[in-house]
Amino acid sequence: MKKAIVFLSGGVDSATCLAIAKAQGYACYALTFDYGQRNHVEIEYAKKCAQQMGVAEHRIFQLNINQWKGSALTDHTLAVPHERSDDIPITYVPARNTIFLSLALSWAEVLGIADVFLGANAIDECNYPDCRPEYIRAFEQMANLATRQGVTGTQFTIHTPLLYLDKTEIIRAGLALGVDYSNTLSCYDPDSTGEACGRCDACYFRAEGFKHAE
Amino acid sequence: MKKAIVFLSGGVDSATCLAIAKAQGYACYALTFDYGQRNHVEIEYAKKCAQQMGVAEHRIFQLNINQWKGSALTDHTLAVPHERSDDIPITYVPARNTIFLSLALSWAEVLGIADVFLGANAIDECNYPDCRPEYIRAFEQMANLATRQGVTGTQFTIHTPLLYLDKTEIIRAGLALGVDYSNTLSCYDPDSTGEACGRCDACYFRAEGFKHAE
Repeated sequence: MKKAIVFLSGGVDSATCLAIAKAQGYACYALTFDYGQRNHVEIEYAKKCAQQMGVAEHRIFQLNINQWKGSALTDHTLAVPHERSDDIPITYVPARNTIFLSLALSWAEVLGIADVFLGANAIDECNYPDCRPEYIRAFEQMANLATRQGVTGTQFTIHTPLLYLDKTEIIRAGLALGVDYSNTLSCYDPDSTGEACGRCDACYFRAEGFKHAE
Repeated sequence: MKKAIVFLSGGVDSATCLAIAKAQGYACYALTFDYGQRNHVEIEYAKKCAQQMGVAEHRIFQLNINQWKGSALTDHTLAVPHERSDDIPITYVPARNTIFLSLALSWAEVLGIADVFLGANAIDECNYPDCRPEYIRAFEQMANLATRQGVTGTQFTIHTPLLYLDKTEIIRAGLALGVDYSNTLSCYDPDSTGEACGRCDACYFRAEGFKHAE
């Protein structure tokens, strides 16, 4: 059975991405990061998803990048904005996807895996530089020069099946594959019980997505 | 004063690299990784270097990549080879430099720094894929697409002043800049007191370098 690493954050996108990878016939190695995120409770949702959807392994990687702050997602003294803007938002975590992909690249090489699924989205997340298609391609090119696998001709591929879908299309795809979205949390700033704030970007896009998907 | 992040492992190359960055007028932010390396005592040498050479800050980052093994440097059940070969050696740590550079990229962005010094070497370390010039350039290209800094036009630069030097030339450069190499350790497999094995690749290149440098 072919194998893939799938990023699993506990949100709508990564749960959908896992369902797509499974539907494509991959045995899935789920990777979740505990990086001091404000919405730390999302890790519990990632565990529920992994358990309910069936994965070969679920690894939760401790990564203390909140030590250098720099984002409203990792610095609890910064407020999560409740308005949308055209700038890169303060919830951007410096180089987060690059760090996550680098660690996935390492684990993939150890497991002999060349495929990684990432729920990056160029529509809703268009202001995050590390969700853009040109970034994803540049990471692949770098990765294929970085590793023993690359040197010996195995191509590292980042699958981004959600890249050009809007939230409604993502949710429709997931529902068609049987995803139970009650196991997901989207909010950037939930309370400790996992109750969403209802006002941040992530809550907004989730609500809009479900409104139009049904 | 211009600022740079400098990787500091505790070895000859990174100590020399730090001296070069300082000589070029950078205030240096030293970054050391505690990644479960077999030669864990090297971290104590990195601390000595940072203290003796003067850095703006020295950060030791905990990074549990030894959880997935895959290298004689992180898996203590694998033996460090005592012969040199033309293959990628078993001391290669999957995607290590990519992970290290990604974390440096993140810290750099938080500090508003665009320059990183890495003691990679294409001569002695020619078998490590992530020490090759083409890899370094590909990482820079990816990094400039990954971050807010990149989007706003600040170019991320990886300085590799040792890339084309052999160990003798590296040591001569360091001695000329006053590096005290008694604060460094090169061995992949030292005992707990920091006594070098004298037989691994790293010991071999260190010994050869000092023999010809004097």
